[in-house]
Amino acid sequence: MRLKLVVAYEGTDFAGFQRQSPDKGRTVQGTLEAAASRLTGQSVQLQGAGRTDQGVHALGQVVSFDTGFALDPGRWPMALNAHLPPDLTVLTAEEAAPGFDPRRQAVAKTYRYLVDTASGARPIYRRFTLHLALPLDVPAMSAAAAALIGEHDFRSFSGRQHLDASRRMWQLRVATLPEQLLLIEMTASGFLYHMARNIAGTLMEVGLGKRPADSMAAVLSGRDRALAGHTAKARGLTLVQVHYAGPPFLDTAPDPGRH
Amino acid sequence: MRLKLVVAYEGTDFAGFQRQSPDKGRTVQGTLEAAASRLTGQSVQLQGAGRTDQGVHALGQVVSFDTGFALDPGRWPMALNAHLPPDLTVLTAEEAAPGFDPRRQAVAKTYRYLVDTASGARPIYRRFTLHLALPLDVPAMSAAAAALIGEHDFRSFSGRQHLDASRRMWQLRVATLPEQLLLIEMTASGFLYHMARNIAGTLMEVGLGKRPADSMAAVLSGRDRALAGHTAKARGLTLVQVHYAGPPFLDTAPDPGRH
Repeated sequence: MRLKLVVAYEGTDFAGFQRQSPDKGRTVQGTLEAAASRLTGQSVQLQGAGRTDQGVHALGQVVSFDTGFALDPGRWPMALNAHLPPDLTVLTAEEAAPGFDPRRQAVAKTYRYLVDTASGARPIYRRFTLHLALPLDVPAMSAAAAALIGEHDFRSFSGRQHLDASRRMWQLRVATLPEQLLLIEMTASGFLYHMARNIAGTLMEVGLGKRPADSMAAVLSGRDRALAGHTAKARGLTLVQVHYAGPPFLDTAPDPGRH
Repeated sequence: MRLKLVVAYEGTDFAGFQRQSPDKGRTVQGTLEAAASRLTGQSVQLQGAGRTDQGVHALGQVVSFDTGFALDPGRWPMALNAHLPPDLTVLTAEEAAPGFDPRRQAVAKTYRYLVDTASGARPIYRRFTLHLALPLDVPAMSAAAAALIGEHDFRSFSGRQHLDASRRMWQLRVATLPEQLLLIEMTASGFLYHMARNIAGTLMEVGLGKRPADSMAAVLSGRDRALAGHTAKARGLTLVQVHYAGPPFLDTAPDPGRH
């Protein structure tokens, strides 16, 4: 049976998602595979929807693997969580189609970047926000964000070379939340290497007045990484959801009334 | 000069706010006093607005102390934060009137209780939420909460004996937030011992169908701790704000556009 799991983690103490040699530190993939192997007594190798960087968090990463272990899918989360540390949790499990590939079949992903704009870094938020106690021009950030929506060549926002850097940005919004938190939320057909963090860093530079709000079209068309802003720190970034159907993706947050 | 500081902390690794003998563990008060003493070279003893329990967090605790150290109030947060651990942060500092007493002069406090209702405990929220993956009847909780608003004898919700247990509940709301988070936010003229956690625990029992939504009037009038529900775990509770003016207190969250 092929299983599809939705997992959440705090990236702070992980060396990223992707399994590495043990001397590189613990990874999300390696920790999940070890837990599944201990539970089932069988070697488990899993696929993830996205290879989040070191320090990046997830509320809805998707992973998949095959298993012959006789356990009802609905019982997998609790069974696996008994073998997992508190910074990595399985939220849901279901049987997937035999050929399900969580990365290739994803039609879009939603990431969010959170900034704590209070005068000091609030401790309860410190692990998943960037602290930036400077005035940010949110309307300017929103205007710049709007120029990135649609189908574009995003190589200016990528930390790697790409033959095809065309992606569709379905949604990119900048919003002030209660309690002096600033949200940058983006849903795209795919994200190039560091793309979410480079967009967040560039939009923050717009917010700080370091670059004009109307400069995004030139950044895109220049197709040059040097034209965009810095790579925002990983700690503020969270993979919120991986989409396997749609559009629309506008209602990205899980239904708050769901249990 | 008497200073008034607004401080934030994650309560997880503190043995509560109030200074204790060192063998009882680190406290918020003790850690702040030690930092201020190191900074100034003078012994500092401070007063807090509220003695939060072990494990309870703060976004806006208020403390006050006298100092002869020649430093502009605006420079105190950064100077003190250099001597503080990451789970305790000074947000703002200002000069207070000579007789300022952060506890006696507080006219109201706002606490919030956060519940993570997702199927698993999301790691990035785990330190400041209670995880409860059971269906909660939010309209019933809201109806029960409404019966607690106003001036009442709250001794049924207190873990201690009181001569005068009369307090005014200005605001008490139950709301579903995005991402399957449930909020219980309360603003009262004062909180008896464990009152915020006992109200949260009682409202969650209403939400679970363990007690009727219309039973709160009888709980109040019975003036008996045994009539109310359990004490909700400390980890979900946060002291949001201490009010020194008002009412109204309805706009309890700091202005999200402020920097």
